[in-house]
Amino acid sequence: MGPVSVGVVGLGYWGPNLVRNLFELPEADLAYVCDLEPERFERISRRYPSIRTTSDFDRLLADPTLDAVAIATTVSTHFELARRALEAGKHVFVEKPLAGSVQEAVELAQIATQTGLVLMPGHTFLYSPPVNKVKAMIDAGEPGGVYSISTSRVNLGLHQPDVSVVWDLAPHDFSILRYWLNELPSFVSALSRGCILPETPDVAFIGLQYPSSTIASVELSWLAPSKLRRTTVIGSRKMVVYDDTSVEPVRVFDAGVTLRDPESYGEYRLTYRTGDIISPRIDAVEPLYLEMADFCTAIREGTTPRSSLEIGVDVVRMVEAVDESLHREGARVRIEESVAALR
Amino acid sequence: MGPVSVGVVGLGYWGPNLVRNLFELPEADLAYVCDLEPERFERISRRYPSIRTTSDFDRLLADPTLDAVAIATTVSTHFELARRALEAGKHVFVEKPLAGSVQEAVELAQIATQTGLVLMPGHTFLYSPPVNKVKAMIDAGEPGGVYSISTSRVNLGLHQPDVSVVWDLAPHDFSILRYWLNELPSFVSALSRGCILPETPDVAFIGLQYPSSTIASVELSWLAPSKLRRTTVIGSRKMVVYDDTSVEPVRVFDAGVTLRDPESYGEYRLTYRTGDIISPRIDAVEPLYLEMADFCTAIREGTTPRSSLEIGVDVVRMVEAVDESLHREGARVRIEESVAALR
Amino acid sequence: MGPVSVGVVGLGYWGPNLVRNLFELPEADLAYVCDLEPERFERISRRYPSIRTTSDFDRLLADPTLDAVAIATTVSTHFELARRALEAGKHVFVEKPLAGSVQEAVELAQIATQTGLVLMPGHTFLYSPPVNKVKAMIDAGEPGGVYSISTSRVNLGLHQPDVSVVWDLAPHDFSILRYWLNELPSFVSALSRGCILPETPDVAFIGLQYPSSTIASVELSWLAPSKLRRTTVIGSRKMVVYDDTSVEPVRVFDAGVTLRDPESYGEYRLTYRTGDIISPRIDAVEPLYLEMADFCTAIREGTTPRSSLEIGVDVVRMVEAVDESLHREGARVRIEESVAALR
Amino acid sequence: MGPVSVGVVGLGYWGPNLVRNLFELPEADLAYVCDLEPERFERISRRYPSIRTTSDFDRLLADPTLDAVAIATTVSTHFELARRALEAGKHVFVEKPLAGSVQEAVELAQIATQTGLVLMPGHTFLYSPPVNKVKAMIDAGEPGGVYSISTSRVNLGLHQPDVSVVWDLAPHDFSILRYWLNELPSFVSALSRGCILPETPDVAFIGLQYPSSTIASVELSWLAPSKLRRTTVIGSRKMVVYDDTSVEPVRVFDAGVTLRDPESYGEYRLTYRTGDIISPRIDAVEPLYLEMADFCTAIREGTTPRSSLEIGVDVVRMVEAVDESLHREGARVRIEESVAALR
Repeated sequence: MGPVSVGVVGLGYWGPNLVRNLFELPEADLAYVCDLEPERFERISRRYPSIRTTSDFDRLLADPTLDAVAIATTVSTHFELARRALEAGKHVFVEKPLAGSVQEAVELAQIATQTGLVLMPGHTFLYSPPVNKVKAMIDAGEPGGVYSISTSRVNLGLHQPDVSVVWDLAPHDFSILRYWLNELPSFVSALSRGCILPETPDVAFIGLQYPSSTIASVELSWLAPSKLRRTTVIGSRKMVVYDDTSVEPVRVFDAGVTLRDPESYGEYRLTYRTGDIISPRIDAVEPLYLEMADFCTAIREGTTPRSSLEIGVDVVRMVEAVDESLHREGARVRIEESVAALR
Repeated sequence: MGPVSVGVVGLGYWGPNLVRNLFELPEADLAYVCDLEPERFERISRRYPSIRTTSDFDRLLADPTLDAVAIATTVSTHFELARRALEAGKHVFVEKPLAGSVQEAVELAQIATQTGLVLMPGHTFLYSPPVNKVKAMIDAGEPGGVYSISTSRVNLGLHQPDVSVVWDLAPHDFSILRYWLNELPSFVSALSRGCILPETPDVAFIGLQYPSSTIASVELSWLAPSKLRRTTVIGSRKMVVYDDTSVEPVRVFDAGVTLRDPESYGEYRLTYRTGDIISPRIDAVEPLYLEMADFCTAIREGTTPRSSLEIGVDVVRMVEAVDESLHREGARVRIEESVAALR
Repeated sequence: MGPVSVGVVGLGYWGPNLVRNLFELPEADLAYVCDLEPERFERISRRYPSIRTTSDFDRLLADPTLDAVAIATTVSTHFELARRALEAGKHVFVEKPLAGSVQEAVELAQIATQTGLVLMPGHTFLYSPPVNKVKAMIDAGEPGGVYSISTSRVNLGLHQPDVSVVWDLAPHDFSILRYWLNELPSFVSALSRGCILPETPDVAFIGLQYPSSTIASVELSWLAPSKLRRTTVIGSRKMVVYDDTSVEPVRVFDAGVTLRDPESYGEYRLTYRTGDIISPRIDAVEPLYLEMADFCTAIREGTTPRSSLEIGVDVVRMVEAVDESLHREGARVRIEESVAALR
Repeated sequence: MGPVSVGVVGLGYWGPNLVRNLFELPEADLAYVCDLEPERFERISRRYPSIRTTSDFDRLLADPTLDAVAIATTVSTHFELARRALEAGKHVFVEKPLAGSVQEAVELAQIATQTGLVLMPGHTFLYSPPVNKVKAMIDAGEPGGVYSISTSRVNLGLHQPDVSVVWDLAPHDFSILRYWLNELPSFVSALSRGCILPETPDVAFIGLQYPSSTIASVELSWLAPSKLRRTTVIGSRKMVVYDDTSVEPVRVFDAGVTLRDPESYGEYRLTYRTGDIISPRIDAVEPLYLEMADFCTAIREGTTPRSSLEIGVDVVRMVEAVDESLHREGARVRIEESVAALR
């Protein structure tokens, strides 16, 4: 099979990044860009005059030479565009979150399963080298069992027109947690506030409880004085800090507490240990490039992309549960098991 | 009235700091140190040979020349020691938290009110220059209305023998929040885990909702790779970061989001503003010295100390509500109004 | 006059940045790229198919519709290429340093003066917003008289094939110092070592003495564990730190020492003052874009570009004096006055 | 031999630290404090009522039970006080620098050698755990051969009444360099300015060249916006940063440049390597306590203290050479070999 012929749909904030990476990727042939606002074509056309531009999504679906579409539109349109593309026989990449509800996500997943087409959610962080460094360490048991994770993803960020800070930012952390821990939380609870627009939460604090006993806290905010993207993983043997804004994005602390003698019970049975701190070398590669390559490989070779459909559905499940907690004044919400058919 | 004659009770981790500051304070005359473990006297006696040492608390109570006691024992003993001291006619300073339950705290408060004696909880952070800088800014309306507060107080900390990380560390943040916001939260919810000792929470994530709509998140941990004491205050006009471990403990960000035209409803009605960042000069004074001086002034002049009994009771109220939430699997718990008699 | 027709010569490390910015600039019409290695054209052609490519520099000089050339080749070729372009009647932009010796730089300057053509050295930092913020502050007297400046420009940097770390990096700091202080140093002295290749200095420490009494230290290194671009300006009233790698690139410290009573002579006549620290908001614009725009404006309107020929010659004067100091074992070398004709 | 009976002479800035540590040290018996300003005794007497106070230095010398004196007076008095103490048969600890000139330092050394008494200069940094960690690494060849060292010791520091910033701060860095490299530089050159008091240098930039080819730069300032104590060691295999103000005082960078094929000569023969960064665990102990213990051990057991007389004389040699360079307008000054008798 030759290069995958792709059309990018949506040229807002993120779409041009898809365009740039697909253009560079040898495995892809970027055939179309599609957007309802034609003035967005100008910059693209100047830079990449060979790419066809259209405001008509159907033109892409009707082109039998087009293998796939990459959708980077607002969340509310994900379901309809992805569904129509799948039904037209196109492989589909959808920016995170996969869809605006679990029901929509599951329905898309079912169509993809039935048609045998690739449906891949755009969880770009799963291709980030530091995220994968931490994943490899957890899989190798280096930090030991994961006691707790605390993460902050905050900055003075653009309020999104159609979604809350939870739908905008939580998919990043939720996909990373799902990828690292390989489990879905049992319960979530959340607290939020719409500080600027009362109806649109722009600050949220989320608590997660996992079947393995791991607990996690996720702080999200579009209202923060400085950009912070810091995740702390506390393990039984080591602690790891992943800071996406740092030149040392992963730091491993050989520190912890040990129960010296679990049988007796006294004041001194705990031993505190602080050892070396290591910042492992992390390669600098653009995650989005790797993600686009994985999408093409999935189409050409039938592999499951790292940012899998299962993770995509689970992330929507987590976000929807947070939304439910917010609507129920912070109540603790159980996350239902994934539909068996998907597994 | 001459210097206040004081006895320090409890020479564990914190007591020696009380000793050192009371010894230096002209308004105080440090007459006794009292501890059940006499080997703790050695170091004190070598340094301060003039101070009487005893393991008999009653000896302090029986000395008619002793005006006051400062209690720095484990939390579970606060109530009994404070009650007996008050009943013996002594003014009392009690390390935070005031007592191990709201009932005990209220009972102590009632005794103090009836006897007219000073009962002061040791919320040292209320005397910290950066905390007071932020307090002054909030009072002056500089950051505008407070949208939200997020705070992390974590480090690889000594597990306390008789209390959880919540009872150990939350009083610090709760007293600061109570002092800054001048209100008690309506609801708290919490998530915690005993990672090392299952029965002793050593990591906790707490959410707070205030009547004024302010929301707050408090992260506490004895299991963290590096010491973090960072509080972010998001106001409608400015944002403030208070970091107790930094050489620039207060940073003011002239940044925010403004609704330009609240009547129309469109994509561009929000204006983002990022301006200068200012680290105001903060004086270096030891908060504990100021706190001890405030205790002496309250005794000598009848003033209400900044770390007031009301704040002390409210902090216990908040901690107890967190404990209840934890026992009810993270349920949202309403904090009852303070007993009217205390106000 | 329409857009300036420009050809970029040299597509090594820096040339593609010139291409990108000239392509975006409305005042410029990027007509040619020229390089001796044709394999470098491929990436350019894929992105910008409209630009003509050639390995023949004479083709540019022979094109009567070409107004100007921008030279981004190795230093040793600057003189010859710039001279020929000027003699062919083209305006010339030359990457820093202007030439490989004072004699060459002065000769180029003379040709430019005689022909009335623009000859502009590429001191990009003169268009950097933080550098200009500090310049504006110094001009307004905010830090007071400049006592001393200390600067470090170090990282694990690519050894250049034909120049030392001094010729590679010093032009950046020297152009900034020349721009800020508006004077040429009287004396320089330097210490260096070729750690990797003995004949190629890769670490250098440079001292500068100015007629105004300001002293400066410049540390340059291609062998440093982490990137550091930090310049500290000590003024009589305030201190300023410019750190090009920080999200707060300019920080103003309202700190200093005051002679309270200069007549008497005692221990206490000095007053130390530490006040607020301010990080002024700095706009994010790409300096190279502004530089290219300034080049076009100089051609179209006859203005003197901020990165002026005079500064360009002075920077070469400073670098050459450092080289002389190094050849004379660190001797203190006087910098001769600029040739009158240039002023 | 029982504890060493010591008298501390000079209770200015540093003397009280000697008092505190000698008081705690079991091997020492702090018998006297001596100062010309009796008001300085009050604080000492309140804390340590057992210590005798006197303004008469001769009283210490005349006490046959006193073994040693620790001198912490201004530099100009070091020689006279140390000489008289040695001649009275007392062991002597002198705060750095050992004396105000090489001649004085050598004369003191000769008296000590002749009398067999301990004469120890107070280079406290030689007892600092991070300094010793770097020393151990260099001795073990971990960073490989030392190419260059760059150090900054700057802050808004108290101007000393009788010495320049060079005599005040350079002994710290010079003793560390002498300790790490185990050699004396061949040449020094320096640039300085008296910004506040023209006759008292308060900013200095110093260059050092070593027989082994190592070069070093030392920046010293009493006029700096923030405290900086950062030393970078560039080795042929690794790079090490020692930052005395950081919670991670030593950081090891597994980074460097390798000549892949030293025989051929081409563009690609250099290989750049960046690997992990490690912050080794450093114990927290007070260097001054270890230094005082070493002084007592030297007296009791006849050992050579780590802060040896030889290092003390060499440091004065280096400082004096810097002074000479400054008086000769930055000239490169050769450091003479140590007097043979001292070795």
